[in-house]
Amino acid sequence: MMAHLTVSVEYGIHCLLWLASSAETALSSRDLAELQVISPSFLAKIFPKLEKAGIVEASEGVRGGYRLALPLEDISVLQIVDAIEGDKPLFGCQEIRHRCATFGDAPPTWATSGVCAIHAVMLKAEKAMRDELAAHSLADLATTFAGKAPTEFITQVQDWMKERVSARKPGRRTKLEAPS
Amino acid sequence: MMAHLTVSVEYGIHCLLWLASSAETALSSRDLAELQVISPSFLAKIFPKLEKAGIVEASEGVRGGYRLALPLEDISVLQIVDAIEGDKPLFGCQEIRHRCATFGDAPPTWATSGVCAIHAVMLKAEKAMRDELAAHSLADLATTFAGKAPTEFITQVQDWMKERVSARKPGRRTKLEAPS
Repeated sequence: MMAHLTVSVEYGIHCLLWLASSAETALSSRDLAELQVISPSFLAKIFPKLEKAGIVEASEGVRGGYRLALPLEDISVLQIVDAIEGDKPLFGCQEIRHRCATFGDAPPTWATSGVCAIHAVMLKAEKAMRDELAAHSLADLATTFAGKAPTEFITQVQDWMKERVSARKPGRRTKLEAPS
Repeated sequence: MMAHLTVSVEYGIHCLLWLASSAETALSSRDLAELQVISPSFLAKIFPKLEKAGIVEASEGVRGGYRLALPLEDISVLQIVDAIEGDKPLFGCQEIRHRCATFGDAPPTWATSGVCAIHAVMLKAEKAMRDELAAHSLADLATTFAGKAPTEFITQVQDWMKERVSARKPGRRTKLEAPS
């Protein structure tokens, strides 16, 4: 069964948490893909969406890459989901209430006015879900992560990132997007 | 963009509301499809799921068809959604936290123990959505519907249903499922 929120959301949030750990080091989507052993071309499609939504900002050049564009506490899980998944409704109402064998060609106004009662319940459920996603920020996730990961691990990853970035050849334009 | 809950849910709930209006008249999925001017073969795939979940019961014979198996107030929107969509998660966690370039072959226990913090937020959001769907019953929807539809319309549809059922040829086995 296909989940509502795809693996792109999971990848996106994990990457943002790594950007949060990387402090001043800007990372390319290829760096992040190799760090997490995931597909670089897949990840390269997610970052422009996060950039468009104002969650990350890109810089060019040898030291270029992505950085968080907002403080951690100002990025909610909902913002990330919306940036990556777009305007994906919980329920796609086809308005079949407009059709009934006894209506003939024209449905009466009472049958089509207002929001369908079924759709209204689905909208409430969607709102409950979105409210919950909005209530959690990247800062909350980072705190949970920091509570689990040993300090040595964070240092180890930061060293991995710095090494990668300093190994970049000057003069060679940093590719923000991995080749697809 | 594909919605999380498909048109099958919309069709299913509308059909259950019609069964609620039909009182003692059992209806086949073909009757319900023609009443609503929707695909009979599509609808025929939904009813076995509702029957399996104990929401409708089927009877055979000339007067056979589907009836609600429970009182309206005992059928929640969540039960209908689960019956039709199955166990479809909001978020499909791929556990990419298990992977990290610095982990080598074996991720450390701290990285894999417990529920991933991202997954935990998604599970909370899913619960909020499900709680809302559970809070609305078919009785609530029927009340809203009854408040909108004029009595003459309900009578008109009930007459349509009765005519259809009495036009069935005795001896010809009633098909519960429309041919696909």
